[in-house]
Amino acid sequence: MERYDVAVIGTGPAGLEAAITAKVRNKSVLLLGGKGSSDKVAKAHTIQNYLGLPNVSGADMAKAFLNHATSMGVEITEDKVNAVYSMGGYFAIQCHNGDYEASSVIIAAGMTAMKPFPGEMENLGRGVSYCATCDAALYKGRTATIVAYSAEDEEEAEFLAERAEHVTYLPQYEYNGTLGNNITVIKDVKPASIEMADGKFALNTDGETYTADGIFILRTQIAPSQLVPGLEMDGNHVKVNRSMATNIKGLYACGDITGTPYQYIKAAGEGNVAALSAVSYLTELKKAQQ
Amino acid sequence: MERYDVAVIGTGPAGLEAAITAKVRNKSVLLLGGKGSSDKVAKAHTIQNYLGLPNVSGADMAKAFLNHATSMGVEITEDKVNAVYSMGGYFAIQCHNGDYEASSVIIAAGMTAMKPFPGEMENLGRGVSYCATCDAALYKGRTATIVAYSAEDEEEAEFLAERAEHVTYLPQYEYNGTLGNNITVIKDVKPASIEMADGKFALNTDGETYTADGIFILRTQIAPSQLVPGLEMDGNHVKVNRSMATNIKGLYACGDITGTPYQYIKAAGEGNVAALSAVSYLTELKKAQQ
Repeated sequence: MERYDVAVIGTGPAGLEAAITAKVRNKSVLLLGGKGSSDKVAKAHTIQNYLGLPNVSGADMAKAFLNHATSMGVEITEDKVNAVYSMGGYFAIQCHNGDYEASSVIIAAGMTAMKPFPGEMENLGRGVSYCATCDAALYKGRTATIVAYSAEDEEEAEFLAERAEHVTYLPQYEYNGTLGNNITVIKDVKPASIEMADGKFALNTDGETYTADGIFILRTQIAPSQLVPGLEMDGNHVKVNRSMATNIKGLYACGDITGTPYQYIKAAGEGNVAALSAVSYLTELKKAQQ
Repeated sequence: MERYDVAVIGTGPAGLEAAITAKVRNKSVLLLGGKGSSDKVAKAHTIQNYLGLPNVSGADMAKAFLNHATSMGVEITEDKVNAVYSMGGYFAIQCHNGDYEASSVIIAAGMTAMKPFPGEMENLGRGVSYCATCDAALYKGRTATIVAYSAEDEEEAEFLAERAEHVTYLPQYEYNGTLGNNITVIKDVKPASIEMADGKFALNTDGETYTADGIFILRTQIAPSQLVPGLEMDGNHVKVNRSMATNIKGLYACGDITGTPYQYIKAAGEGNVAALSAVSYLTELKKAQQ
């Protein structure tokens, strides 16, 4: 498997700047995230204080950022990251569409507004999972509940349903899909909490309770502490020092995920620092391995 | 005297971004520094990693930055800061052309490559000074040595010489001036150290020793610890936390002065954070004063 020098997770200002800076320093870069840069940027109204781009719309700013990345040969790999594991000397990055390896990792995944449901963290990895595609093989002859946040999740539900006996699908978005067969779609219910009962997992909602062998929560974004086991947090944010280093050697964070203010130029500045810290780390690592 | 909400010292990327952000937040801003933005920016070759401005020359970047500031109504006050004093609840800012007051201060003065001469710090304020204009009145009938770093200092030498009995002027730049009368210009000598001897102050150089009642060192930039009495340093850099706060309440720092990497986007990002921290501080201050 190709081992990248730097894997950057997130394509907002922090992630793009980190990728560009690592590229300028001649590192091989894997940039994982959405092709449209960050939704938050693209949907923003006029931005007045990104120095050098006065009075720019969010859409134009996103375009300027992506054009810059493209002009530097930085490509975006559209994939959703499930987990990042420090393997000692390198990182394994588990994604929906495959696995990757990198010597250093920069987390620039932004802030998710969603908090885990009560009971979610406690049962993560035994009855609760974030990737139906990854775990599908385990569901032969078993049942599952899916909490879904975007139409893209329907494909994942179908894939799971090919193996599973039955799937209950709870869309948390405006559902216009065509899921059928052994998939029951239940619209307009809000998940409230998760509990284990008799070896099965119950999803309590504002109405019924749905019980199955497992529950998949397909958030568009995973909380950083869930993404990287052992990652030290400071409240809702990843704890970093002024070099953007986290508590995990070789793993850096930048942008909104590291704390307020949630500002584009702050995020980009931190992306730059994170990338240069990763570059220093790579030099160190190379020396240590010689 | 008008008391500004925020005084920003320095017109590089950090200072300009700080001023713009404070302005966006409806604060009155005093921006002190050179009109040409930072020399370092303007003289830079192509910059590849300032997100949103791909492959831009230093001169074009400086222009884009200054245009942005101008478009926001941010004006530069061209003045040289000698000292910043925390007065408890506000700051007094002593400049060459006058004094200012501000409720909060952001230091974005960049890094000076120059270290103080041996003996300089020990005698600062008694025989060594950084502002000939400020101290001229004290030099009636006395003598002074000036170490000068730019042609603009010649005016200051002339002003001092109007009061002083005699001035020795040691240009550390290519001198093409016309200083005369009671000013002796000595070219091509390098200051080495300063010592007090018999109540006078001797400047030792790589050749002669020049003794006078006082020595003026007119650096284009003053080291931050000399600029702000009591400011905590971390080696050559101002010590800041992730909010860009220094050890002095209401005083923030950003850009190169806070540490490496010396990068434009890092500096701008920090300017943004410093300004928003100052804005929070102003809200707090207002509450406390009510």
